[in-house]
Amino acid sequence: MDKLDAIFSPQTIAVIGASTQKGKVGHDIFANILYGGYTGTLYPVNPKAKSVLSVKCYISIAAIPDPIDLAMIILPPKAALGSVKECIAKGVKGIVIVSAGFKEVGGEGALMEIQIKELCAQAGVRLVGPNCLGVINPSKKVSLNASFSARMPKPGNVSFISQSGALCTAVLDYAADKGFGFSKFISIGNKADVDELDLLRYYHKDPDTDVVMIYMEELSRTSEEFVTEVREMTSGTNPTHVIVIKSGSSVAGAAAAASHTGALAGSDAIYDGIFTMSGILRCKTVNQLFDYAQAFAANKYPTGDRIAIVTNAGGPGIIATDMSEQSGLKLAKFSEETVKELKKYLPATANFHNPVDVIGDAAKDRYENTLATVLADRGVDAVLIILTPQSMTDAIGTAEAIVKIAKNSIKPILCAFMGVVDVSDGVKLLQAHRVPVYQFPESAARSLGALREGMKWSFRKILPQYDLVYDRDKAAGIIDKYMKEGRKILGELDGNEILNCYGFKTIPTVLSKTAKQAVKIAEKMGYPVVMKIVSPQILHKSDAGGVKVGVKDADGVEMAFETIMKNGRAYDPDAQISGVLVQKMAPEGKEVILGVTKDPVFGHAIMFGLGGIFVEVYKDVAFRLSPMGRNVARRMVKSIKGYPILKGLRGQAPSDIEAIEKNIVSLKAMVDNHPMIAELDINPLFVHGEGEGTTVADIVIRLEDGA
Amino acid sequence: MDKLDAIFSPQTIAVIGASTQKGKVGHDIFANILYGGYTGTLYPVNPKAKSVLSVKCYISIAAIPDPIDLAMIILPPKAALGSVKECIAKGVKGIVIVSAGFKEVGGEGALMEIQIKELCAQAGVRLVGPNCLGVINPSKKVSLNASFSARMPKPGNVSFISQSGALCTAVLDYAADKGFGFSKFISIGNKADVDELDLLRYYHKDPDTDVVMIYMEELSRTSEEFVTEVREMTSGTNPTHVIVIKSGSSVAGAAAAASHTGALAGSDAIYDGIFTMSGILRCKTVNQLFDYAQAFAANKYPTGDRIAIVTNAGGPGIIATDMSEQSGLKLAKFSEETVKELKKYLPATANFHNPVDVIGDAAKDRYENTLATVLADRGVDAVLIILTPQSMTDAIGTAEAIVKIAKNSIKPILCAFMGVVDVSDGVKLLQAHRVPVYQFPESAARSLGALREGMKWSFRKILPQYDLVYDRDKAAGIIDKYMKEGRKILGELDGNEILNCYGFKTIPTVLSKTAKQAVKIAEKMGYPVVMKIVSPQILHKSDAGGVKVGVKDADGVEMAFETIMKNGRAYDPDAQISGVLVQKMAPEGKEVILGVTKDPVFGHAIMFGLGGIFVEVYKDVAFRLSPMGRNVARRMVKSIKGYPILKGLRGQAPSDIEAIEKNIVSLKAMVDNHPMIAELDINPLFVHGEGEGTTVADIVIRLEDGA
Repeated sequence: MDKLDAIFSPQTIAVIGASTQKGKVGHDIFANILYGGYTGTLYPVNPKAKSVLSVKCYISIAAIPDPIDLAMIILPPKAALGSVKECIAKGVKGIVIVSAGFKEVGGEGALMEIQIKELCAQAGVRLVGPNCLGVINPSKKVSLNASFSARMPKPGNVSFISQSGALCTAVLDYAADKGFGFSKFISIGNKADVDELDLLRYYHKDPDTDVVMIYMEELSRTSEEFVTEVREMTSGTNPTHVIVIKSGSSVAGAAAAASHTGALAGSDAIYDGIFTMSGILRCKTVNQLFDYAQAFAANKYPTGDRIAIVTNAGGPGIIATDMSEQSGLKLAKFSEETVKELKKYLPATANFHNPVDVIGDAAKDRYENTLATVLADRGVDAVLIILTPQSMTDAIGTAEAIVKIAKNSIKPILCAFMGVVDVSDGVKLLQAHRVPVYQFPESAARSLGALREGMKWSFRKILPQYDLVYDRDKAAGIIDKYMKEGRKILGELDGNEILNCYGFKTIPTVLSKTAKQAVKIAEKMGYPVVMKIVSPQILHKSDAGGVKVGVKDADGVEMAFETIMKNGRAYDPDAQISGVLVQKMAPEGKEVILGVTKDPVFGHAIMFGLGGIFVEVYKDVAFRLSPMGRNVARRMVKSIKGYPILKGLRGQAPSDIEAIEKNIVSLKAMVDNHPMIAELDINPLFVHGEGEGTTVADIVIRLEDGA
Repeated sequence: MDKLDAIFSPQTIAVIGASTQKGKVGHDIFANILYGGYTGTLYPVNPKAKSVLSVKCYISIAAIPDPIDLAMIILPPKAALGSVKECIAKGVKGIVIVSAGFKEVGGEGALMEIQIKELCAQAGVRLVGPNCLGVINPSKKVSLNASFSARMPKPGNVSFISQSGALCTAVLDYAADKGFGFSKFISIGNKADVDELDLLRYYHKDPDTDVVMIYMEELSRTSEEFVTEVREMTSGTNPTHVIVIKSGSSVAGAAAAASHTGALAGSDAIYDGIFTMSGILRCKTVNQLFDYAQAFAANKYPTGDRIAIVTNAGGPGIIATDMSEQSGLKLAKFSEETVKELKKYLPATANFHNPVDVIGDAAKDRYENTLATVLADRGVDAVLIILTPQSMTDAIGTAEAIVKIAKNSIKPILCAFMGVVDVSDGVKLLQAHRVPVYQFPESAARSLGALREGMKWSFRKILPQYDLVYDRDKAAGIIDKYMKEGRKILGELDGNEILNCYGFKTIPTVLSKTAKQAVKIAEKMGYPVVMKIVSPQILHKSDAGGVKVGVKDADGVEMAFETIMKNGRAYDPDAQISGVLVQKMAPEGKEVILGVTKDPVFGHAIMFGLGGIFVEVYKDVAFRLSPMGRNVARRMVKSIKGYPILKGLRGQAPSDIEAIEKNIVSLKAMVDNHPMIAELDINPLFVHGEGEGTTVADIVIRLEDGA
């Protein structure tokens, strides 16, 4: 038996801090469990009361004569700590602490939370909260509403996890209005013990849960831990679909980030990476969360992107077509047979092609025949049905026909019954039979697009890993030297050496101290050359006027040397300038950027995007974290908008995308091997034609403070 | 008196085709007017009935003894045409034809629609429809529901125009559920006469209309006509705010477009241009349309972008902060005085800084005091109030307090009362007093962002026009020559000549027929040079391998000549190749693209964007149409995402943005003067530093077929 069963399906519950005073949390939660029809046995604990709501009250949990599965604690922090000890002594299996005043207020409260957490961990008791709304399990077998919302939702196959208690009440309220059912519903508050990953594991094994909705403020697991498990749960033939709404500050990463990567790595971009890697769908609004959950809860998935639209009004049909195309779907082309069949049932003025217009005066029959016909077409993967209330419209009859057909169809059918009052009977019937129904066609179309995305993810292609070899020791030697000397910034000379250890191709680069020396180096290398300032204080060399490209002859080199030194001194009079690098011009290629930043919670994140000034303006970059491998790298490269540029636009030769993938995998191996790397920019990395690899044109590495 | 008054506020109405049979449109519309409490006099016309719903029936409109303002016609096309003639003879002022079977079915129906339209135009009678749902005016003075929806909305200050009848019923239904009121409501169907612009004129003068919602499928006015009027209506201190949802095929422009501009000019991009120029806000979903309309209907506008958020729950406060920032707003920084004042009313655990958390157990008082305090802060331009239902929450009391404060505030206050049932009394009260209220904080924040955008538009800066001189006659001479010779494509030599007439700077360019000749030309010009193939069949010269840049010496020129000729022949063996252009390398600059395409309805559209391959992938371009001037050009340049690149990133010198603006204005003047220009690409146009102008590096012009 899973320990979380004691939380969701306890046989006995003690409410510690149960109160006789209406309006108090200790009263309301007790009342909600009692009047919610809980199928187990309920015991109030309160030393000052004889009974609560007519139920015999105990002075302590120890005084209860029977064993207790779940203790609900509604007490201030200090009393809660004492109560936890008693609960453990009694042998409870699960504890929910509803009260606030712990970590979120800091100080003594935070310390008590740590003590409680440790006590529970030692005793092997699972703890939910503190600072949460409680737990709900609407299943008829349990019928548990241990929350301070009086509203018990209907049973369903969607489970909910919320980090915000306040949002829970609003969500329950909203769900009631939509006739939306839940399997399990939990508010996790401060997450002292039980968190999202624990619950996802539990929900994935739960036969009553097919879809999980999460409201998340922040995650406190490493990426490796979270992603490795969750991506398995969302995959294969029996996936648990996870949909999340994540709030958090929009402000981008540390203002003083030393790298492009650091500056672009707002926590939001990192979360996007984690969700994408886990196969979690991210929503922008609570409305969308419900829309998507409804679509996934029907457990029918499109095996392709070709949809049929059936409508009794032109305008909404066009809206649905627009949104379908924006959501990655396309209109199916019907077979001749289908069109012939449709002509039998529909009037001459109808449109027999996609989107099918059954005309405003369509009653139930036309919808029924049309739906059955387009559903049978092998070129149709899903159907979207639009009904607008008009004088001949039979919303309930049409809904009945849809339910009947949906029962025998493995293809998804989504409905948009437009309007509220006039179509409400039909909507309720569809909802009762888990046929997804929306108020507007654009929501239905977008949800169908999400469904298709989810399906593609679950059955994604997985290629064998690249077999790559690194010279870890040599790289470690270089980094050790810097650490011993207390130096934090590795420039191109040593940076290139380290990259070479991880299979990167770099360009011959030599440091010059004088203009004459620079000329000598350049003559030996061959023109044209690139020249760059070397100074630990000057990270953005271009900004400081510290870079000259395409220097073509000795005069040019001499002049460039002087200019670069002068610019560097003007940019930062205190900068130590070691000299000017002379570098052979890189062979031609597409400019991309590869970078690393280190997130305090999730660990190293790799960034990839198109390089040049566009990285700053269009921010067309992607972040991915552990676990990194060929498949993550492949999808990462594909995910940026500029991917077609790498594939080769307008007959241009394709770039060496496989080489980029290997670079990404190697870069991640590098920071895993040398975790003291805090930030890194390879900017630009030149990508050459297929089979010709990549070349590093510039590199900066920053080691961690105190590393 | 405006002629449309006969449509919206008639004193007398004849329903021609009124029917005694329930369920027929002719019956339902008559019933809806009669039972809707119409304040004027209603006459049914039907030769076969004595009375309809107890009202004396007439055999023809001629037989009615009184004058008739409005005739509602529900008859098949042929009968409708006869009836229109009788109506005109009778002297009606307005006609609404509800029935379908006209232009939308083509053939005879389309011909009859033209006849009806002409008859009405000659007689000076305004015509709505055919193929529409009808007209609604909920004002107590009129109380007219001449539609086939039985649902009469509440009176309000938002008017609606719909091109789809079916959408109207759904919208009325939705509005009823939201308690949303309307001023005027009309379905315009085929728009034989009355269209969006007519109605916008009428609504703008209507004291009862502040906001107009439009559902549009397509517009049939020129851009010049539509934009010139509508941008005035949406401007200044007494604007009419217009919000549109536009559906239409997502498929981009003609597949065979000869230019980049043509390929990017999907109808959607053109409509975006027209809406932006008109100050019309475009929505993606019907939900958003209502959200925005509610915000604008309150008639209070933020004079800055600094908002205060007041919430009783942390999570929703974060969501609101996120969406506010995404919508162009920022969190206000409170004055010390405000914080001091807040500390008086709020418990110690509250957050006294923005977003203000009044804590879950807040009743009415805390909300009231907090709202009054933050509203009084001079650093606050608008307030967003979030209420989640918790045990101490007093939704109705809080709503009362908000209404009271809102009454005396010129700053906008928007509310998010989360949940449906538990907060519905409060929501209803807010709605009744026109305080915008939403179900979720993200909708409220987004709507506030839209409000701020609208405000910025209404009071936008308008600069005096540029004073530019053109050599129209010389350009006309060149174009005439091509037209006489039946040639359609102007390449760089003649293209540059024409551009010179309109103030563009071009580069010395000479045609060479042999490699030797090319060397001679290049030697005279000075190296490096660019070489390009000249062939009317090869428009995308780069794709054909027909361009070599940076050719540095005589050998290079000779080799480039041969390669280009070979590539050209291989690309298209039938191409006539006139030779190879030798062109001086353009001075350094940022690459942008300027283009023209000609829309069959709206006329010439100008495109501007960043050049290079990025134009294709990121599609970061803007379209604008007539009327073009300095201010349109200025805002157009600013509107692209890549604008910061032109302003100068990371200390780079700014580009000559004014020169781009002048180029845009001149280009529009050019196509106005020479309307036979169908397509044009200046790609790239090099933009130099401030004051240094721009240089055309390549140009293709295509003249219209049959021009």
